[in-house]
Amino acid sequence: MSKKLTSRAEDYSKWYNELVVKADLAENSAVRGCMVIKPYGYAIWEKMQAELDRMFKETGHQNAYFPLFVPKSLFEAEEKNAEGFAKECAIVTHYRLQTDPDNPGKLRVDPEAKLEEELIVRPTSEAIIWNTYRGWIQSYRDLPILINQWANVVRWEMRTRLFLRTAEFLWQEGHTAHETKTEALAEARLMNNVYATFVEKFMAIPVIQGVKTESERFAGADETFCIEALMQDGKALQAGTSHFLGQNFAKAFDVKYATKEGTQEYVWATSWGVSTRLMGALIMTHSDDNGLVLPPSLAPNQVVIVPIYKSEEDLAAITEVVNTILTDLRAKNITVKYDNRTTQRPGAKFAQHELQGVPLRIAIGPKDLENGTVELARRDTLTKAVVGLNDLTATVESLLKEIQETLFKKALDFRDKHITEVNTFEEFKQVLENKTGFISAHWDGTNETEEKIKELTKATIRCIPLEMKAEEGVCIFSGKPSKGRVLFAKAY
Amino acid sequence: MSKKLTSRAEDYSKWYNELVVKADLAENSAVRGCMVIKPYGYAIWEKMQAELDRMFKETGHQNAYFPLFVPKSLFEAEEKNAEGFAKECAIVTHYRLQTDPDNPGKLRVDPEAKLEEELIVRPTSEAIIWNTYRGWIQSYRDLPILINQWANVVRWEMRTRLFLRTAEFLWQEGHTAHETKTEALAEARLMNNVYATFVEKFMAIPVIQGVKTESERFAGADETFCIEALMQDGKALQAGTSHFLGQNFAKAFDVKYATKEGTQEYVWATSWGVSTRLMGALIMTHSDDNGLVLPPSLAPNQVVIVPIYKSEEDLAAITEVVNTILTDLRAKNITVKYDNRTTQRPGAKFAQHELQGVPLRIAIGPKDLENGTVELARRDTLTKAVVGLNDLTATVESLLKEIQETLFKKALDFRDKHITEVNTFEEFKQVLENKTGFISAHWDGTNETEEKIKELTKATIRCIPLEMKAEEGVCIFSGKPSKGRVLFAKAY
Repeated sequence: MSKKLTSRAEDYSKWYNELVVKADLAENSAVRGCMVIKPYGYAIWEKMQAELDRMFKETGHQNAYFPLFVPKSLFEAEEKNAEGFAKECAIVTHYRLQTDPDNPGKLRVDPEAKLEEELIVRPTSEAIIWNTYRGWIQSYRDLPILINQWANVVRWEMRTRLFLRTAEFLWQEGHTAHETKTEALAEARLMNNVYATFVEKFMAIPVIQGVKTESERFAGADETFCIEALMQDGKALQAGTSHFLGQNFAKAFDVKYATKEGTQEYVWATSWGVSTRLMGALIMTHSDDNGLVLPPSLAPNQVVIVPIYKSEEDLAAITEVVNTILTDLRAKNITVKYDNRTTQRPGAKFAQHELQGVPLRIAIGPKDLENGTVELARRDTLTKAVVGLNDLTATVESLLKEIQETLFKKALDFRDKHITEVNTFEEFKQVLENKTGFISAHWDGTNETEEKIKELTKATIRCIPLEMKAEEGVCIFSGKPSKGRVLFAKAY
Repeated sequence: MSKKLTSRAEDYSKWYNELVVKADLAENSAVRGCMVIKPYGYAIWEKMQAELDRMFKETGHQNAYFPLFVPKSLFEAEEKNAEGFAKECAIVTHYRLQTDPDNPGKLRVDPEAKLEEELIVRPTSEAIIWNTYRGWIQSYRDLPILINQWANVVRWEMRTRLFLRTAEFLWQEGHTAHETKTEALAEARLMNNVYATFVEKFMAIPVIQGVKTESERFAGADETFCIEALMQDGKALQAGTSHFLGQNFAKAFDVKYATKEGTQEYVWATSWGVSTRLMGALIMTHSDDNGLVLPPSLAPNQVVIVPIYKSEEDLAAITEVVNTILTDLRAKNITVKYDNRTTQRPGAKFAQHELQGVPLRIAIGPKDLENGTVELARRDTLTKAVVGLNDLTATVESLLKEIQETLFKKALDFRDKHITEVNTFEEFKQVLENKTGFISAHWDGTNETEEKIKELTKATIRCIPLEMKAEEGVCIFSGKPSKGRVLFAKAY
């Protein structure tokens, strides 16, 4: 199989799909819209999970686990939420198969094993969780509840793409309960901030924090905070959301608490989540025509060492030196793999590690042994250098830091160059035709205008930036007054 | 709510159910047979996961993720496996809800959104995984494949109990592919051994390794290795299984590989799993009438510190000393919580930590400050001692080790005292009437005898121990010859 990818310029979408499969990140499965996350892709996801989990716990959250299924009567209790997810959910109606009488050796659904009440495979867990919280919350002493869940969810999307939009995906969903509106709002902002920090520092992807317009809000939320990233093709990607749910779920599930003063009040709620979709953002922010480019913090192997040899004696001598390198790097908590497979030639190994985005590659042959050097290749810049063995650990350590920073700066520079301020709808459409990223424009604040712009251009309001500077202006579409610019883009 | 539990002597089953709920481990949900794992219970499960994951990776395995759903045509491909799980599986038949025309505000399944092929919610993942492996395996170079998955699975059990038997549970399932029978068998034994080591060293639960009889084997396996533990009520609990699957799945899914010699051969397989059921084993091995008893390795908090004070000044002085204790203990990687909640009195805190099985409790009041001491209470023995502050860290460290060992020895002693050798069916029935654990007896090796004994006594063959000593004898039931004793018991 050729490892060569379609170039991004030729067909960005095809490049993405090929990269995901050829770099062994994920593949489509026999189940429509569901993916298999392969070990290499899963190892990257595990690194994201570990860091996020640490950040959640540091901010006082605990993990728990709630059922996969939501009985229909609970699912429909919060009307807006139900309406938002009803059209794309997997529904369990039966609990037994039986031998097919017309088709021996085959099975069929046992018509007598029909559930009294259908079960929805969770597309999100507010309903089942708030139904549970009712039993956990009696008084202010029981609040706040700060819980996170790592889980799989199912949304029956019609057009799916690996990581970006799949019928089943993995995510975490935080669900918190608070005494006051102020506290809940602060929590929703805090977690959006945790996401922004994680995505910027750990994934090296710059994001813009903002709030969603009413029409783009999570179904059942009073306010949705989000982080928005920009992909290399000029399309935006929503990388995480944090919702202030008001008292909507507390009212739908009758969750009240006794205040210190003895009155009964509905509880205030938030929920927040990021998913395996972040893998898509990672790929489309940093990678190039040669394959995946990984920030060192997310690389399952930060360094790979490839021996170049003709004889067994050479290999033995190389391995001896490599063992010292391995020990030294691991002592600095650098993950390093010695690729001494005999089934592959060095060229094939180089190609594979390039495709899989290993940040640094060390090649070492008999000549290096003589000179006390190695060849050190950098994945992000595709540059090579000869480095003395004595300097190797320090060089690797500082390069890993540098790569992490460089990737972020490069992405930030790209993103900032692709925010265009426009003042007329003509300009707006011109920018969009060239797919040039975020468009900063005045909007009159109405659903109607937003909807019309979407119909005409496919661009949506990605967010109203939290750091929006106050600026009087007029809506590019309606000419009505506006108090600040919002960010439009076509989006994944 | 009273925290007092029903005693084990009074009603073991009730004691268990109350403990699980009152110690905040788990509770039943609105979904029949599905549980909510509460933060404290989940924190224990996370500790199990972390250690198992480490052990899996150390033995060369990688994590991956496969779809939740199995299309019916794949589900039924391996006949024995399908037959084994067909009667207890959740089936997705539709993918959309719509507003109920007869019931505005309510939803109903959209009859037009029927799936062409039903999807089974995975009860185990051999089918979907082996269908995937077909694409991954071409030649011996692609083998072995050593993959593990952390996931939720669903088995529509009719009689459920928290942790022990739930319709949805969390588990890990390893799925490996090998060139030869010898390799696959070695893998299955290795992983059973990993389980035994984990359960004994980490969970302090002694287990017997063995193989299952044909009738107790995993559906689709040629051999099932298992670890069997004994609960305090004399019933056995299967704590983990590791299956040698032969070429059954390779044949069902047509997974062949090219050998070094260029011939095409079917691949050999194993699968192995442990689940949240281990939480049940943990509880029923160590706990007492006062609540949970946790081995230190699994305790979310190994030590809890409770301040005893009347004035704010006292509390301030205590907290100053406690801060030093916290620093010292944490420097030794001991997890410790300072329970300075103002909403609870010390007595209530003591009761809660006892119920939740915190291994060591430190109480510290003004008198202790004067004397430079603390009161140190041990959960497993319910004993207290006064310890000088200078000796505290060392004492805690050595006590935690001692508790871990003591719990294992106590459980081992109990288990060994509850293995009874019998030579007649009369003796067999007598022992069973007193629920006294494992019965070691000769069996003629036939399904027929096994089945009859089960019918008459509800006892099953838990395993043929790996370390069975060769001993000629006659079957207690049929009088036919036998070459060694097997272990019978009533089981969870």
